[in-house]
Amino acid sequence: MSFHPDTSVLQRGPQETPPTVVGRPTRIVIIGAGFGGLAVARELGNTVLEVTVIDRRNHNLFQPLLYQVATAALSPADIAEPIRRTLGRYKNIRVMLAEVTGVDQTARHVLLEDGAPVAYDHLIIATGSEYNYFGHDEWRAVAPGLKTIHEARLIRQRLLLSFERAELSQDATEKKALLTSVIIGGGPTGVELAGAIAELGRYMITRDFRKLAPEDFRVILIEAGPKILAAFPDELTDYAWHELAKLGVDIRTGVRVENITRGSVQTSGGTIPAGNILWGAGVKASPAHKWLGLEAKMGGRIPVGPDLQVEGTKGIYALGDTALRIDDEGKPLPALAQVAKQQGEYLGKALREQLLDGRPSEPFHFHNRGNTAVIGRHAAIFDFGNRRLKGRLAWLLWAIVHVFLLVNFEKRLLVTVQWLWRYVTRQRGARLIDENAATGLPATTHRSET
Amino acid sequence: MSFHPDTSVLQRGPQETPPTVVGRPTRIVIIGAGFGGLAVARELGNTVLEVTVIDRRNHNLFQPLLYQVATAALSPADIAEPIRRTLGRYKNIRVMLAEVTGVDQTARHVLLEDGAPVAYDHLIIATGSEYNYFGHDEWRAVAPGLKTIHEARLIRQRLLLSFERAELSQDATEKKALLTSVIIGGGPTGVELAGAIAELGRYMITRDFRKLAPEDFRVILIEAGPKILAAFPDELTDYAWHELAKLGVDIRTGVRVENITRGSVQTSGGTIPAGNILWGAGVKASPAHKWLGLEAKMGGRIPVGPDLQVEGTKGIYALGDTALRIDDEGKPLPALAQVAKQQGEYLGKALREQLLDGRPSEPFHFHNRGNTAVIGRHAAIFDFGNRRLKGRLAWLLWAIVHVFLLVNFEKRLLVTVQWLWRYVTRQRGARLIDENAATGLPATTHRSET
Repeated sequence: MSFHPDTSVLQRGPQETPPTVVGRPTRIVIIGAGFGGLAVARELGNTVLEVTVIDRRNHNLFQPLLYQVATAALSPADIAEPIRRTLGRYKNIRVMLAEVTGVDQTARHVLLEDGAPVAYDHLIIATGSEYNYFGHDEWRAVAPGLKTIHEARLIRQRLLLSFERAELSQDATEKKALLTSVIIGGGPTGVELAGAIAELGRYMITRDFRKLAPEDFRVILIEAGPKILAAFPDELTDYAWHELAKLGVDIRTGVRVENITRGSVQTSGGTIPAGNILWGAGVKASPAHKWLGLEAKMGGRIPVGPDLQVEGTKGIYALGDTALRIDDEGKPLPALAQVAKQQGEYLGKALREQLLDGRPSEPFHFHNRGNTAVIGRHAAIFDFGNRRLKGRLAWLLWAIVHVFLLVNFEKRLLVTVQWLWRYVTRQRGARLIDENAATGLPATTHRSET
Repeated sequence: MSFHPDTSVLQRGPQETPPTVVGRPTRIVIIGAGFGGLAVARELGNTVLEVTVIDRRNHNLFQPLLYQVATAALSPADIAEPIRRTLGRYKNIRVMLAEVTGVDQTARHVLLEDGAPVAYDHLIIATGSEYNYFGHDEWRAVAPGLKTIHEARLIRQRLLLSFERAELSQDATEKKALLTSVIIGGGPTGVELAGAIAELGRYMITRDFRKLAPEDFRVILIEAGPKILAAFPDELTDYAWHELAKLGVDIRTGVRVENITRGSVQTSGGTIPAGNILWGAGVKASPAHKWLGLEAKMGGRIPVGPDLQVEGTKGIYALGDTALRIDDEGKPLPALAQVAKQQGEYLGKALREQLLDGRPSEPFHFHNRGNTAVIGRHAAIFDFGNRRLKGRLAWLLWAIVHVFLLVNFEKRLLVTVQWLWRYVTRQRGARLIDENAATGLPATTHRSET
């Protein structure tokens, strides 16, 4: 069985029904191995379908705990699994580490930056989202977002190095700046980072540094809108605000960021010198819409129908953060892991029913499993729509849910138990500064490696 | 108590006895927080001495298992611990992350690249060793050695990426090169890397790659001398050779390396195209001898007396890979972790006896705890001098010894048990390719990050 197809049978327009090809397996190509893409792949595993999963990274990431890598509680490998391992048991699935550059809808080919085109009969786009710097992409280098392992390592690195430099500094102004972290964006990621950094900083300073005082350490959370955690009801937001304040986080709402440079943030409320600047102020979909010749609107999300098929195409689907799906109440589904996962499972089953059993599928419906954010040790919030939960009990539920999700994610119980143990005992296992780091600190010199 | 001293009392020549200063604590400065430096610091912990530990990294590393990070069995954080955590319990010890640029023996100051000079009464130099490229430092970028976490990550990255690229390659010659790993140097590190890469490669190809065959995969171990593991007796070397060959490693002794470029090694026996080139062909001491105005000889090691004091100085000591100590049989002590550790413990105790109890110390004697190398799962060698051990039993002993050493190193039993479990079950937990890697592969393009 050759992987490279006889394309002559496939010379049809993009709007036609995908061919039912007799004599060779139907080819499913999935771009993106996040929660959504992997869920599709798992549903199609060990069938007669020929499935290819393309990702630019070799690992899939449990993003909900990425902030814990950034704050040295977890190692990258604890929340990342090689895609080949995840899918290794399915003999009909091929994994490709490659960068997609476009889609040829006429030839039904996915085009790669470096490699032969990949033919598909059905194409699933699940490429997620990235941080939106709202036209200021130059801020990315000085204020990284938190989407990848690389960024998490970079943030961890800058945070730890700024403490080290503060310990050595003889200059009070410089010391104050180095011990200031500014987090831009008051959504769940910003809140989780602010809480975790506040906890880590106080703990480290008290225990490990001789020349720093906990009161020198500042975490500032900046939000342009009137409230943090805007997706949550006021009752939970108020609680989160209160808990963050208890951790010493200085929350500034209604403040716009005007410029960011290495080592300082200029806002509508004044300039803040800071050793650490983090970005979490909004996401946009990956540029996958360009591959389909669609114009960017609604943050670049691709409009899909009730069966997740991209509007105006046949055999091309989008899901998760990449897709724009309007629910029955006329609101777009949020960019959440649970949406991507449910859509992936739905689409995998639907394709199986359609292609293997020859029967049509019901439309997709989202079941809200609860929206959550964790503020710190023993403080979290849950919004189930009709019910709300906050405080210690919510934190316990958050921890249990994440242990189960993580075990399910990577099938490694021991690591997970260990994580919970480290997290609860406040041991920080992964406080590593890579010796070759490009740190982006407001540094005077760069340490050389011999 | 101010950390910055009144240096007026210290204006003496370098050859004089260190002053016994009345009215302030004696200041001990330790450069380097490896096995040796940390052992000194621990012995001096919670005394009235004022101890400063300076390192250019924020973590200390359990180097004997670094090859397992390079081959994706362990995460960096599993074998690295923040120095501040290791020493946090000792209130008289200060840790500085800084790059040392020199020693002013007249003023008794350690000079830093970026920070105020640090005054000492006694100075301990324990800065370890680095790979020796024998005048070809340009090879470092294409053939990294294995001394730091950064290098281990880089090697892991290149190894995994070369498999990914081979899976996509349409060109048989390129594929063959990508699946070839060349390891230069047949010492313990070279042998351990060769064995681990051979095992990892076969396992990954069989389980996770659809377009690669185990027989396409080659590991070549090049040694300029007549035998591998030259420090071991022939009986053990022969066994190691046999076991490596069983793993499919192609061992080439008596072969000199003439040039290394990105993607190929030119040797006295011909040119080998290779996706992965690793260097383990000899070490030299860190450049610390320059700080003391000594000329480099014997690989830059600093000659020390029976009390580890640097010859021609008072109050300056060197130990571990940095020091040259001739034993009673007229041979230099080897550059091994156990030598550094024993010397550190000795020196710490000796300083305590001298400075706190006012009594002189016995000279240092090395106790050989056994020299070991591991070839692969279930195969290792031990040389105790008078006794030798090889095979499964040696491997079991190696594993037990390393579990104990690691538990002692980082005080984390759970991680260690988990490591042993993963190692025995062949799960590879840390197969991560960082998305921003400068990989140095013979690549045609560079994957971009959005």
